[in-house]
Amino acid sequence: MKPVITAFEASPDKGRGLARDMQVRWALEEVGRAYDVRLVSFAQMKEPAHKAIHPFGQIPTLEEDGLALFESGAIVLHIAESAPGLLPADPAARARAINWMFAAQTTVQAPIVEREGAVLTEADKPYHAERLPMLEQRIRVRLDDLSARLGDADWLDGEFSAGDLMMVTVLRRLGSSGMLNDYANLTAYIARAEVRPAWTRAFADQLAVFTASQKG
Amino acid sequence: MKPVITAFEASPDKGRGLARDMQVRWALEEVGRAYDVRLVSFAQMKEPAHKAIHPFGQIPTLEEDGLALFESGAIVLHIAESAPGLLPADPAARARAINWMFAAQTTVQAPIVEREGAVLTEADKPYHAERLPMLEQRIRVRLDDLSARLGDADWLDGEFSAGDLMMVTVLRRLGSSGMLNDYANLTAYIARAEVRPAWTRAFADQLAVFTASQKG
Repeated sequence: MKPVITAFEASPDKGRGLARDMQVRWALEEVGRAYDVRLVSFAQMKEPAHKAIHPFGQIPTLEEDGLALFESGAIVLHIAESAPGLLPADPAARARAINWMFAAQTTVQAPIVEREGAVLTEADKPYHAERLPMLEQRIRVRLDDLSARLGDADWLDGEFSAGDLMMVTVLRRLGSSGMLNDYANLTAYIARAEVRPAWTRAFADQLAVFTASQKG
Repeated sequence: MKPVITAFEASPDKGRGLARDMQVRWALEEVGRAYDVRLVSFAQMKEPAHKAIHPFGQIPTLEEDGLALFESGAIVLHIAESAPGLLPADPAARARAINWMFAAQTTVQAPIVEREGAVLTEADKPYHAERLPMLEQRIRVRLDDLSARLGDADWLDGEFSAGDLMMVTVLRRLGSSGMLNDYANLTAYIARAEVRPAWTRAFADQLAVFTASQKG
Protein backbone atom coordinates (compact mmCIF):
# COMPACT_ATOMS: atom_id res chain seq x y z
CA MET A 1 0.00 0.00 0.00
CA LYS A 2 1.34 3.38 -0.99
CA PRO A 3 1.74 5.98 1.76
CA VAL A 4 -0.42 9.09 1.44
CA ILE A 5 1.09 12.46 2.29
CA THR A 6 -0.56 15.86 2.54
CA ALA A 7 0.69 19.06 0.93
CA PHE A 8 -0.56 22.60 0.41
CA GLU A 9 -3.18 22.96 -2.33
CA ALA A 10 -1.48 26.27 -3.16
CA SER A 11 1.82 26.61 -1.32
CA PRO A 12 2.64 30.07 0.04
CA ASP A 13 6.22 29.55 -1.16
CA LYS A 14 4.94 29.52 -4.77
CA GLY A 15 6.56 26.18 -5.55
CA ARG A 16 10.08 26.98 -4.38
CA GLY A 17 10.21 23.70 -2.47
CA LEU A 18 10.29 25.34 0.95
CA ALA A 19 7.04 23.84 2.23
CA ARG A 20 7.78 20.84 4.37
CA ASP A 21 6.14 18.28 2.10
CA MET A 22 9.36 18.73 0.09
CA GLN A 23 11.31 16.93 2.82
CA VAL A 24 8.88 14.03 2.76
CA ARG A 25 8.70 13.83 -1.03
CA TRP A 26 12.48 13.93 -1.27
CA ALA A 27 12.89 11.19 1.33
CA LEU A 28 10.36 8.96 -0.44
CA GLU A 29 12.16 9.52 -3.75
CA GLU A 30 15.56 8.75 -2.19
CA VAL A 31 14.36 5.36 -1.00
CA GLY A 32 12.39 4.75 -4.19
CA ARG A 33 8.91 4.54 -2.73
CA ALA A 34 5.82 5.60 -4.67
CA TYR A 35 3.27 7.70 -2.79
CA ASP A 36 -0.02 9.50 -3.18
CA VAL A 37 -0.64 13.13 -2.28
CA ARG A 38 -3.76 14.63 -0.80
CA LEU A 39 -3.87 18.39 -1.22
CA VAL A 40 -5.36 20.50 1.54
CA SER A 41 -6.39 24.15 1.64
CA PHE A 42 -5.58 26.46 4.54
CA ALA A 43 -9.19 26.17 5.67
CA GLN A 44 -9.14 22.36 5.53
CA MET A 45 -5.96 22.20 7.61
CA LYS A 46 -7.80 23.73 10.54
CA GLU A 47 -10.81 21.38 10.30
CA PRO A 48 -11.32 18.45 12.70
CA ALA A 49 -10.73 15.83 10.00
CA HIS A 50 -7.21 17.12 9.34
CA LYS A 51 -6.48 17.93 12.97
CA ALA A 52 -7.28 14.33 13.86
CA ILE A 53 -4.14 13.49 11.88
CA HIS A 54 -2.15 16.68 12.52
CA PRO A 55 -3.10 18.15 15.91
CA PHE A 56 -1.42 21.46 15.03
CA GLY A 57 -3.30 21.82 11.73
CA GLN A 58 -0.32 21.90 9.38
CA ILE A 59 1.25 19.89 6.59
CA PRO A 60 2.85 17.47 5.91
CA THR A 61 1.35 14.28 7.25
CA LEU A 62 1.97 10.70 6.26
CA GLU A 63 -0.59 7.92 6.49
CA GLU A 64 0.26 4.31 5.89
CA ASP A 65 -1.24 1.03 7.08
CA GLY A 66 -3.24 2.73 9.80
CA LEU A 67 -0.27 4.76 11.04
CA ALA A 68 -0.51 8.56 10.90
CA LEU A 69 2.49 10.83 11.45
CA PHE A 70 2.59 14.61 11.32
CA GLU A 71 6.08 15.99 11.91
CA SER A 72 8.36 16.17 8.89
CA GLY A 73 11.38 15.05 10.92
CA ALA A 74 9.56 12.02 12.27
CA ILE A 75 8.10 11.23 8.86
CA VAL A 76 11.52 11.37 7.20
CA LEU A 77 12.97 9.17 9.95
CA HIS A 78 10.11 6.69 9.50
CA ILE A 79 10.73 6.60 5.75
CA ALA A 80 14.47 6.25 6.31
CA GLU A 81 13.85 3.25 8.54
CA SER A 82 11.49 1.64 6.03
CA ALA A 83 14.04 1.17 3.24
CA PRO A 84 17.78 1.60 2.66
CA GLY A 85 19.24 4.83 1.30
CA LEU A 86 18.90 7.45 4.01
CA LEU A 87 20.48 5.93 7.12
CA PRO A 88 23.78 4.06 7.46
CA ALA A 89 23.59 0.47 8.64
CA ASP A 90 26.32 0.99 11.25
CA PRO A 91 24.56 1.88 14.54
CA ALA A 92 26.95 4.71 15.48
CA ALA A 93 26.80 6.28 12.02
CA ARG A 94 23.02 5.91 12.09
CA ALA A 95 22.83 7.72 15.45
CA ARG A 96 25.01 10.53 14.08
CA ALA A 97 22.78 10.90 11.00
CA ILE A 98 19.73 11.20 13.26
CA ASN A 99 21.71 13.70 15.32
CA TRP A 100 22.04 15.90 12.21
CA MET A 101 18.31 15.59 11.59
CA PHE A 102 17.59 17.06 15.01
CA ALA A 103 20.34 19.67 14.58
CA ALA A 104 18.72 20.82 11.34
CA GLN A 105 15.21 20.91 12.79
CA THR A 106 16.11 22.70 16.01
CA THR A 107 19.52 24.36 16.35
CA VAL A 108 19.82 25.53 12.75
CA GLN A 109 16.17 25.99 11.83
CA ALA A 110 15.04 27.99 14.88
CA PRO A 111 16.81 31.29 14.08
CA ILE A 112 16.01 30.90 10.37
CA VAL A 113 12.29 30.55 11.05
CA GLU A 114 12.41 33.42 13.52
CA ARG A 115 13.85 35.73 10.86
CA GLU A 116 11.28 34.48 8.34
CA GLY A 117 8.46 35.23 10.73
CA ALA A 118 9.76 38.75 11.33
CA VAL A 119 10.14 39.46 7.61
CA LEU A 120 6.68 38.06 6.93
CA THR A 121 4.70 39.69 9.70
CA GLU A 122 6.73 42.63 11.07
CA ALA A 123 8.46 44.17 8.05
CA ASP A 124 6.17 47.22 8.25
CA LYS A 125 6.92 47.87 11.92
CA PRO A 126 9.18 50.79 12.83
CA TYR A 127 11.45 48.48 14.84
CA HIS A 128 11.99 45.92 12.09
CA ALA A 129 15.10 47.58 10.65
CA GLU A 130 16.67 47.61 14.11
CA ARG A 131 15.85 43.94 14.81
CA LEU A 132 16.80 42.40 11.48
CA PRO A 133 20.60 42.57 11.93
CA MET A 134 20.23 40.89 15.33
CA LEU A 135 18.10 38.10 13.83
CA GLU A 136 20.58 37.61 11.01
CA GLN A 137 23.50 37.55 13.40
CA ARG A 138 21.87 34.65 15.26
CA ILE A 139 21.66 32.76 11.99
CA ARG A 140 25.24 33.63 11.12
CA VAL A 141 26.47 32.12 14.39
CA ARG A 142 24.92 28.82 13.32
CA LEU A 143 26.11 29.03 9.73
CA ASP A 144 29.67 29.78 10.87
CA ASP A 145 29.71 26.63 12.98
CA LEU A 146 27.97 24.50 10.38
CA SER A 147 30.31 25.70 7.65
CA ALA A 148 33.35 25.00 9.85
CA ARG A 149 32.11 21.50 10.59
CA LEU A 150 31.27 20.66 6.97
CA GLY A 151 34.64 21.92 5.75
CA ASP A 152 35.34 20.53 2.31
CA ALA A 153 33.38 17.34 2.81
CA ASP A 154 30.51 16.49 0.46
CA TRP A 155 28.08 15.64 3.26
CA LEU A 156 27.92 16.16 7.00
CA ASP A 157 29.04 12.69 8.03
CA GLY A 158 30.23 10.30 5.34
CA GLU A 159 27.58 9.29 2.82
CA PHE A 160 24.48 11.38 2.11
CA SER A 161 21.89 10.72 4.81
CA ALA A 162 18.56 11.86 6.19
CA GLY A 163 20.62 14.35 8.21
CA ASP A 164 21.79 16.04 5.02
CA LEU A 165 18.27 15.90 3.62
CA MET A 166 16.91 17.82 6.58
CA MET A 167 19.83 20.25 6.73
CA VAL A 168 19.67 21.13 3.04
CA THR A 169 15.93 21.80 3.16
CA VAL A 170 16.39 24.02 6.22
CA LEU A 171 19.28 25.95 4.62
CA ARG A 172 17.30 26.45 1.40
CA ARG A 173 14.87 28.59 3.41
CA LEU A 174 17.63 31.23 3.44
CA GLY A 175 17.69 31.37 -0.35
CA SER A 176 16.13 34.78 -0.77
CA SER A 177 18.00 36.32 2.17
CA GLY A 178 21.38 36.39 0.43
CA MET A 179 22.95 35.17 3.67
CA LEU A 180 24.34 31.99 2.14
CA ASN A 181 26.52 34.00 -0.25
CA ASP A 182 29.13 34.28 2.49
CA TYR A 183 29.39 30.50 2.83
CA ALA A 184 30.80 28.95 -0.34
CA ASN A 185 30.91 25.43 1.08
CA LEU A 186 27.29 25.56 2.24
CA THR A 187 26.18 26.88 -1.15
CA ALA A 188 28.06 24.03 -2.82
CA TYR A 189 26.52 21.57 -0.33
CA ILE A 190 23.02 22.67 -1.29
CA ALA A 191 23.92 22.57 -4.99
CA ARG A 192 25.17 18.99 -4.58
CA ALA A 193 21.83 18.02 -3.08
CA GLU A 194 19.82 19.79 -5.78
CA VAL A 195 21.28 17.68 -8.56
CA ARG A 196 20.37 14.41 -6.91
CA PRO A 197 17.73 12.70 -9.08
CA ALA A 198 15.49 12.19 -6.05
CA TRP A 199 15.61 15.91 -5.22
CA THR A 200 14.87 16.86 -8.83
CA ARG A 201 11.82 14.60 -8.98
CA ALA A 202 10.50 15.79 -5.62
CA PHE A 203 11.02 19.43 -6.57
CA ALA A 204 9.27 19.01 -9.92
CA ASP A 205 6.32 17.27 -8.28
CA GLN A 206 5.72 19.95 -5.68
CA LEU A 207 6.17 22.68 -8.29
CA ALA A 208 3.60 21.00 -10.54
CA VAL A 209 1.06 21.21 -7.71
CA PHE A 210 1.61 24.94 -7.33
CA THR A 211 1.54 25.55 -11.08
CA ALA A 212 -1.75 23.65 -11.38
CA SER A 213 -3.22 25.67 -8.52
CA GLN A 214 -2.61 28.89 -10.46
CA LYS A 215 -4.50 27.60 -13.50
CA GLY A 216 -7.63 26.80 -11.52
CA MET B 1 31.08 1.58 30.02
CA LYS B 2 29.06 4.46 31.38
CA PRO B 3 28.06 7.21 28.98
CA VAL B 4 29.47 10.66 29.71
CA ILE B 5 27.25 13.69 29.26
CA THR B 6 28.08 17.38 29.47
CA ALA B 7 26.19 20.00 31.46
CA PHE B 8 26.63 23.63 32.43
CA GLU B 9 29.13 24.21 35.21
CA ALA B 10 26.74 26.95 36.43
CA SER B 11 23.44 26.76 34.60
CA PRO B 12 21.85 30.10 33.68
CA ASP B 13 18.48 28.66 34.75
CA LYS B 14 19.80 28.46 38.34
CA GLY B 15 18.97 24.77 38.68
CA ARG B 16 15.35 24.91 37.57
CA GLY B 17 15.92 21.95 35.28
CA LEU B 18 15.43 23.96 32.08
CA ALA B 19 18.90 23.37 30.67
CA ARG B 20 18.82 20.57 28.16
CA ASP B 21 21.02 18.19 30.10
CA MET B 22 17.82 17.65 32.12
CA GLN B 23 16.27 15.80 29.17
CA VAL B 24 19.29 13.55 28.89
CA ARG B 25 19.58 12.93 32.64
CA TRP B 26 15.86 12.14 32.84
CA ALA B 27 16.04 9.73 29.91
CA LEU B 28 19.02 7.92 31.43
CA GLU B 29 17.19 7.65 34.75
CA GLU B 30 14.03 6.33 33.07
CA VAL B 31 15.93 3.47 31.47
CA GLY B 32 18.03 2.92 34.59
CA ARG B 33 21.45 3.68 33.16
CA ALA B 34 24.26 5.15 35.26
CA TYR B 35 26.25 7.97 33.71
CA ASP B 36 29.06 10.40 34.34
CA VAL B 37 28.84 14.15 33.92
CA ARG B 38 31.53 16.48 32.67
CA LEU B 39 30.81 20.09 33.58
CA VAL B 40 31.74 22.82 31.12
CA SER B 41 31.93 26.59 31.48
CA PHE B 42 30.60 29.00 28.87
CA ALA B 43 34.17 29.66 27.77
CA GLN B 44 34.97 25.95 27.43
CA MET B 45 31.86 25.35 25.31
CA LYS B 46 33.28 27.59 22.60
CA GLU B 47 36.73 25.98 22.60
CA PRO B 48 37.86 23.58 19.87
CA ALA B 49 37.90 20.57 22.21
CA HIS B 50 34.20 20.93 22.97
CA LYS B 51 33.25 22.01 19.46
CA ALA B 52 34.81 18.83 18.14
CA ILE B 53 31.97 17.07 19.95
CA HIS B 54 29.32 19.78 19.68
CA PRO B 55 29.87 21.84 16.53
CA PHE B 56 27.51 24.57 17.79
CA GLY B 57 29.30 24.92 21.14
CA GLN B 58 26.42 24.02 23.43
CA ILE B 59 25.38 21.38 25.93
CA PRO B 60 24.36 18.59 26.28
CA THR B 61 26.51 16.02 24.57
CA LEU B 62 26.72 12.28 25.10
CA GLU B 63 29.83 10.20 24.57
CA GLU B 64 29.81 6.44 24.70
CA ASP B 65 31.99 3.75 23.13
CA GLY B 66 33.52 6.19 20.67
CA LEU B 67 30.15 7.64 19.65
CA ALA B 68 29.56 11.36 20.28
CA LEU B 69 26.11 12.96 19.96
CA PHE B 70 25.18 16.57 20.56
CA GLU B 71 21.44 17.21 20.09
CA SER B 72 19.23 16.50 23.08
CA GLY B 73 16.50 15.00 20.88
CA ALA B 74 18.93 12.65 19.20
CA ILE B 75 20.58 11.77 22.50
CA VAL B 76 17.25 10.93 24.12
CA LEU B 77 16.28 8.83 21.11
CA HIS B 78 19.62 7.03 21.28
CA ILE B 79 19.11 6.32 24.98
CA ALA B 80 15.52 5.21 24.33
CA GLU B 81 16.76 2.73 21.76
CA SER B 82 19.45 1.39 24.09
CA ALA B 83 17.12 0.01 26.76
CA PRO B 84 13.38 -0.47 27.33
CA GLY B 85 11.27 2.16 29.06
CA LEU B 86 10.97 5.10 26.70
CA LEU B 87 9.73 3.68 23.41
CA PRO B 88 6.92 1.18 22.80
CA ALA B 89 7.89 -2.11 21.17
CA ASP B 90 5.07 -1.89 18.61
CA PRO B 91 6.55 -0.21 15.48
CA ALA B 92 3.57 2.10 14.86
CA ALA B 93 3.42 3.22 18.49
CA ARG B 94 7.19 3.72 18.43
CA ALA B 95 6.92 5.92 15.32
CA ARG B 96 4.19 7.98 17.00
CA ALA B 97 6.32 8.45 20.13
CA ILE B 98 9.20 9.71 17.97
CA ASN B 99 6.68 11.94 16.21
CA TRP B 100 5.91 13.60 19.55
CA MET B 101 9.63 14.05 20.20
CA PHE B 102 9.96 16.07 16.99
CA ALA B 103 6.70 17.92 17.71
CA ALA B 104 8.08 18.99 21.08
CA GLN B 105 11.46 20.04 19.71
CA THR B 106 10.13 21.98 16.72
CA THR B 107 6.43 22.87 16.55
CA VAL B 108 5.93 23.47 20.26
CA GLN B 109 9.41 24.63 21.27
CA ALA B 110 10.02 27.20 18.50
CA PRO B 111 7.57 29.89 19.69
CA ILE B 112 8.49 29.23 23.33
CA VAL B 113 12.18 29.80 22.68
CA GLU B 114 11.39 32.86 20.56
CA ARG B 115 9.51 34.44 23.47
CA GLU B 116 12.34 33.49 25.85
CA GLY B 117 14.89 35.15 23.61
CA ALA B 118 12.83 38.34 23.43
CA VAL B 119 12.36 38.47 27.20
CA LEU B 120 16.05 37.80 27.76
CA THR B 121 17.58 40.18 25.21
CA GLU B 122 14.93 42.73 24.21
CA ALA B 123 12.96 43.47 27.37
CA ASP B 124 14.50 46.95 27.56
CA LYS B 125 13.57 47.85 23.99
CA PRO B 126 10.71 50.30 23.42
CA TYR B 127 8.96 47.82 21.11
CA HIS B 128 9.06 44.87 23.52
CA ALA B 129 5.68 45.60 25.11
CA GLU B 130 4.09 45.71 21.66
CA ARG B 131 5.70 42.44 20.53
CA LEU B 132 5.16 40.31 23.64
CA PRO B 133 1.40 39.69 23.16
CA MET B 134 2.09 38.57 19.58
CA LEU B 135 4.80 36.16 20.75
CA GLU B 136 2.54 34.78 23.46
CA GLN B 137 -0.34 34.37 21.04
CA ARG B 138 1.88 32.16 18.85
CA ILE B 139 2.55 29.97 21.88
CA ARG B 140 -1.13 29.91 22.79
CA VAL B 141 -2.05 28.59 19.35
CA ARG B 142 0.23 25.61 20.03
CA LEU B 143 -0.93 25.09 23.60
CA ASP B 144 -4.59 25.17 22.51
CA ASP B 145 -3.95 22.39 20.02
CA LEU B 146 -1.76 20.38 22.36
CA SER B 147 -4.27 20.68 25.20
CA ALA B 148 -7.09 19.59 22.88
CA ARG B 149 -5.12 16.57 21.73
CA LEU B 150 -4.06 15.49 25.23
CA GLY B 151 -7.61 15.83 26.54
CA ASP B 152 -7.94 13.89 29.78
CA ALA B 153 -5.32 11.31 28.91
CA ASP B 154 -2.32 10.82 31.17
CA TRP B 155 0.21 10.89 28.33
CA LEU B 156 0.19 11.90 24.68
CA ASP B 157 -0.14 8.41 23.22
CA GLY B 158 -0.74 5.51 25.58
CA GLU B 159 2.11 4.80 27.98
CA PHE B 160 4.69 7.44 29.00
CA SER B 161 7.30 7.71 26.26
CA ALA B 162 10.29 9.72 25.08
CA GLY B 163 7.70 11.93 23.36
CA ASP B 164 6.24 12.90 26.72
CA LEU B 165 9.71 13.38 28.15
CA MET B 166 10.57 15.90 25.46
CA MET B 167 7.19 17.62 25.57
CA VAL B 168 7.19 18.05 29.35
CA THR B 169 10.69 19.54 29.36
CA VAL B 170 9.71 21.96 26.60
CA LEU B 171 6.49 23.00 28.37
CA ARG B 172 8.35 23.52 31.65
CA ARG B 173 10.22 26.38 29.97
CA LEU B 174 6.94 28.34 30.23
CA GLY B 175 6.90 27.97 34.01
CA SER B 176 7.68 31.58 34.87
CA SER B 177 5.46 33.01 32.13
CA GLY B 178 2.19 32.09 33.80
CA MET B 179 0.87 30.98 30.41
CA LEU B 180 0.25 27.41 31.52
CA ASN B 181 -2.29 28.57 34.11
CA ASP B 182 -4.95 28.61 31.39
CA TYR B 183 -4.37 24.93 30.60
CA ALA B 184 -5.35 22.72 33.52
CA ASN B 185 -4.68 19.47 31.67
CA LEU B 186 -1.20 20.55 30.58
CA THR B 187 -0.37 21.64 34.12
CA ALA B 188 -1.54 18.25 35.39
CA TYR B 189 0.46 16.54 32.64
CA ILE B 190 3.64 18.26 33.79
CA ALA B 191 2.86 17.49 37.43
CA ARG B 192 2.41 13.79 36.57
CA ALA B 193 5.86 13.80 35.01
CA GLU B 194 7.46 15.60 37.93
CA VAL B 195 6.54 12.90 40.40
CA ARG B 196 8.14 10.14 38.38
CA PRO B 197 11.12 8.81 40.36
CA ALA B 198 13.37 9.20 37.33
CA TRP B 199 12.42 12.87 36.97
CA THR B 200 12.98 13.49 40.67
CA ARG B 201 16.46 11.98 40.58
CA ALA B 202 17.44 13.85 37.42
CA PHE B 203 16.14 17.12 38.79
CA ALA B 204 17.98 16.68 42.10
CA ASP B 205 21.22 15.86 40.30
CA GLN B 206 21.17 18.91 38.05
CA LEU B 207 20.17 21.13 40.98
CA ALA B 208 23.08 19.79 43.03
CA VAL B 209 25.46 20.92 40.29
CA PHE B 210 24.09 24.44 40.38
CA THR B 211 24.09 24.57 44.17
CA ALA B 212 27.71 23.44 44.28
CA SER B 213 28.67 26.08 41.72
CA GLN B 214 27.37 28.80 44.04
CA LYS B 215 29.54 27.60 46.89
CA GLY B 216 32.71 27.81 44.84
